[in-house]
Amino acid sequence: MSSYAAPLKDMHFVLRELAGLDRVAELPGFEDATPDLVEAILDEAGKFAGGVLAPINFSGDQEGASWADRTVTMPAGFKEAYRQFAEAGWNGLSCEPAFGGQGLPKLVSAAVQEMWKAANISFSLCPLLTLGAIEALTLCGSNEQQRKYLPEMIAGRWTGTMNLTEPQAGSDLAAVRTRAVPQPDGSYRIYGQKIFITYGEHDMAENIVHLVLARTPDAPEGVKGISLFVVPKFMVDDQGRLGSRNDAYCVSIEHKLGIHASPTCVMAFGDNEGAVGTLVGRENEGLKYMFIMMNAARFAVGLEGLALGEAAYQKALAYAKDRVQGRDIGGSAGSVAIIRHPDVRRMLMLMKAQSEAMRALAYTVAAAHDAALHHPEAELRRQNQAFVDLMIPVVKGWSTETGNELAYLGVQVHGGMGFIEETGAAQFMRDARILTIYEGTTGIQANDLIGRKIAREGGATVKSVIALMRETEALLEQQEGDDFAAIKAALAYGIVAVDAAAEHIAAHYASDIRGVSVGAVPFLKLMGIVCGGWQMARAALVSQAKIAAGQGGDPYYAAKIITARFYADHVLSAATGLAHTVVHGATGALALSEELF
Amino acid sequence: MSSYAAPLKDMHFVLRELAGLDRVAELPGFEDATPDLVEAILDEAGKFAGGVLAPINFSGDQEGASWADRTVTMPAGFKEAYRQFAEAGWNGLSCEPAFGGQGLPKLVSAAVQEMWKAANISFSLCPLLTLGAIEALTLCGSNEQQRKYLPEMIAGRWTGTMNLTEPQAGSDLAAVRTRAVPQPDGSYRIYGQKIFITYGEHDMAENIVHLVLARTPDAPEGVKGISLFVVPKFMVDDQGRLGSRNDAYCVSIEHKLGIHASPTCVMAFGDNEGAVGTLVGRENEGLKYMFIMMNAARFAVGLEGLALGEAAYQKALAYAKDRVQGRDIGGSAGSVAIIRHPDVRRMLMLMKAQSEAMRALAYTVAAAHDAALHHPEAELRRQNQAFVDLMIPVVKGWSTETGNELAYLGVQVHGGMGFIEETGAAQFMRDARILTIYEGTTGIQANDLIGRKIAREGGATVKSVIALMRETEALLEQQEGDDFAAIKAALAYGIVAVDAAAEHIAAHYASDIRGVSVGAVPFLKLMGIVCGGWQMARAALVSQAKIAAGQGGDPYYAAKIITARFYADHVLSAATGLAHTVVHGATGALALSEELF
Repeated sequence: MSSYAAPLKDMHFVLRELAGLDRVAELPGFEDATPDLVEAILDEAGKFAGGVLAPINFSGDQEGASWADRTVTMPAGFKEAYRQFAEAGWNGLSCEPAFGGQGLPKLVSAAVQEMWKAANISFSLCPLLTLGAIEALTLCGSNEQQRKYLPEMIAGRWTGTMNLTEPQAGSDLAAVRTRAVPQPDGSYRIYGQKIFITYGEHDMAENIVHLVLARTPDAPEGVKGISLFVVPKFMVDDQGRLGSRNDAYCVSIEHKLGIHASPTCVMAFGDNEGAVGTLVGRENEGLKYMFIMMNAARFAVGLEGLALGEAAYQKALAYAKDRVQGRDIGGSAGSVAIIRHPDVRRMLMLMKAQSEAMRALAYTVAAAHDAALHHPEAELRRQNQAFVDLMIPVVKGWSTETGNELAYLGVQVHGGMGFIEETGAAQFMRDARILTIYEGTTGIQANDLIGRKIAREGGATVKSVIALMRETEALLEQQEGDDFAAIKAALAYGIVAVDAAAEHIAAHYASDIRGVSVGAVPFLKLMGIVCGGWQMARAALVSQAKIAAGQGGDPYYAAKIITARFYADHVLSAATGLAHTVVHGATGALALSEELF
Repeated sequence: MSSYAAPLKDMHFVLRELAGLDRVAELPGFEDATPDLVEAILDEAGKFAGGVLAPINFSGDQEGASWADRTVTMPAGFKEAYRQFAEAGWNGLSCEPAFGGQGLPKLVSAAVQEMWKAANISFSLCPLLTLGAIEALTLCGSNEQQRKYLPEMIAGRWTGTMNLTEPQAGSDLAAVRTRAVPQPDGSYRIYGQKIFITYGEHDMAENIVHLVLARTPDAPEGVKGISLFVVPKFMVDDQGRLGSRNDAYCVSIEHKLGIHASPTCVMAFGDNEGAVGTLVGRENEGLKYMFIMMNAARFAVGLEGLALGEAAYQKALAYAKDRVQGRDIGGSAGSVAIIRHPDVRRMLMLMKAQSEAMRALAYTVAAAHDAALHHPEAELRRQNQAFVDLMIPVVKGWSTETGNELAYLGVQVHGGMGFIEETGAAQFMRDARILTIYEGTTGIQANDLIGRKIAREGGATVKSVIALMRETEALLEQQEGDDFAAIKAALAYGIVAVDAAAEHIAAHYASDIRGVSVGAVPFLKLMGIVCGGWQMARAALVSQAKIAAGQGGDPYYAAKIITARFYADHVLSAATGLAHTVVHGATGALALSEELF
């Protein structure tokens, strides 16, 4: 049913030619990330994704995770696949070597994670949440917490969760009410209910380490009174042995549109004697720690948009090459494969071009993340961090919206068969629908982008990105031929659009925050489209250089130039209209009083 | 769970002020369609939609139609709702009075049908298919067929189906293989399998009248050898009494993404002794008859896009007014309802404005359809028919794509709750996904638009529409104030975009049919967006006149002007980019050879 082949050629091209794997491998601590090792890792990951995870993607969707008597049973095959996943060491790929991880760059783990997500997004959420919890404990946990939890979690024997949302609060963490009551021994008892907890309960691991936001007595109101606690499913003694069952239970799971194999749990903490937890870091600083995790998680969800777009593309492409129906509109003796129909090609190219653009931008951001943490020069660390901070909401928001668009197109390519669940195309669309919502909706990403990332610094970082894009534009100008002329023209319009929109935001945010906020999502989409087009233009330039250097025998390079050309005329062409909406869209959106809706 | 209130105020405004109900009521045969009667009909229909159909929409989705032993059982409540529907006479609203119909204009039935579709699209498909079969028999059936079938079908006691698709053929009717073997008594025996047959079997009516495409022996190959047959589930004698069970059976139903309560059947004709059928009209002209039905059905599916967009909007709006979460970004003492957040308002306005634009365009086309059939002057009949022919693929393609976008936004407004099936927002998204596929995919609509409707006549009709839009633009120019300046500017850009794109299509279709076809769907979307904007501009002008005439006390008119302004800056703004894609998009889409995908 499900088949997936990791797009290794494009992944390696982006890693090496666009994201700068060589430079990342020169950073202190990443000396092991040689081209040979990275190639071997990606090969093995591709085999695992295609051979173990993809085959249980559709069956996992149909069967779903099931709940009974406070326990969750995973669909057939998941427990065994997770055992293999952990034993092969995939869980610790980018984790600290001090606790058993392999310490590879985020750039490499991004490519590997793309594969897990594309092959089986429901499965991939378990290690994703575990990684988030590992990151929080690595950065903020006490020595004792680290010693107790990290080796088992990095080895994948225990998994992790993030417990933020409460029924009354949704995305508004200021409204969190879960209580943490200090005990004489220095621990806390946690009381409260959390919802939407991914893999809050399951049968694939020996223990589950919950990270929980809660309030201590007399904590300040709002987000300044939130603390972070670690609450294990089974208590762990000083020798690391599992002890008694903690008072943290899954009381139900949600019946969802998609990701059916990923249990979304309602968690009850302290319904009986109180759930035992220990404080992570300092009291009332929980939100800060959560944001550390959240930025990593937001980037990862952006990768999910890319991954589901790629998976939907592969499925639609296979169908379009196989399905024979109708004559060629330009004339043919008999019926032809539907890929021959111009509109089907258009849809496939939209899927291909945008998947490649999302990959190029995401990996480039991952490489900047590695440099932001590991570069020896402080100024370069700062510059890279500023680029990462600006781009995280774009990667999250744009890639997830685009991933949904691609999954929608994937159904359309299948025609009537796309609407039949057995085909599997509809699953990508259902699964993708959560991506623009969890880890902060697109609206929340966009507010972060225009507020914290642009207005607060007067647009400094976005201006530096615009300057980089103009360098690419100048290089395009030196190329010959229609394709590069079209790419150059479209990118130039795109840059002007981003520039005008960012100027508007920086100039009016303080005086008209509601009006400017109307343009937040259109601006986020504009940024994604243009930055994606920038990366496609860079890819076309590299490809042209390869051809000029005598590597024209590999048709990949000519295809990349055509794909960048397509992107310019079919995707970048939306930039000017989006900038108009950012600059002029406030009045129409805000003028209507609420009772007139 | 599901609640729906027919948007009567906007419906009446569009009927009277934009679509010209008064002029339609002056057409011969429609004298009864007085404002009072139409108001009474819409009131009653709204009560039936909200009170009977909407309450079984969600439960019908969850339970679904079920199949066992060649029979289909409908979900709870459907049989009783259908009985009430038929007894109230809703089925025959627009049918011929000679056979028991009420003979009301298509304009009125369009508004009523919008309600059925919005309240419960799965239910609405049964009368929709019946109407298609009624139309075919009314126009092409023999006297005997009409006498035998029409009164019962119009009364709703028997339902109808359209049997086109076969497994190997999909949208390609040239590949139809079902055989029709003539019998000595003048009847035929039908042998073959049809798929995707909506309401091919169910338990709501006494009989089902199948219209089936099949080939007689020695028929020419391709679409010129297809004939249309009527094949009842139960044979009917000359006194109209039901006789023996015909050899036409539902052998399975599909497991689909949405419209779970609408049984999508695999029909086996003649697996035993042969299914008895009679020829409709003349041999080998079946395709022509099917196209008559199909144009009506395509318009109706366009209404489904509008209806699901409206239904999704109502649900999202209710949630956004009710759900309190987060502070106002401009500052507030406590948490506010989420409609206060600028991005939520933006999404709601996108839903509201595009629903209103779709309604205005669809009803205007319905009124032209009435004039095309009933106007006393031949030239006006011709002009209106040309307008209808041009607009049917736009209403079908654009409204269904937009309906999907709105259902997607509806989920987004709900945040995490939107992904939970119990909320009901996801159902609209799942149900809507078939709309861009059945009755001809968006690609097929778009090819029809650029080929049969534009290139074939050198763009004559689209030029006349452009001339009408320029008249509206001139009226906008005479208005004062920022809102009208913005609407005027956006519409002017939109008209230029349509003009340039249509010119390109008319000029190059013959010489570069594949290249021009790449731009077919972008052009269809451009036409929909701009024609929708044209109708919103007309609505704003009427509203301004009402205000000037002292009717400013009704805030509906001010809201309409604001909504048109929003549409201009947030929807029409995409026009120029789409025209670029139509004119320049071919190279990038077609250059890649198929093995390089």
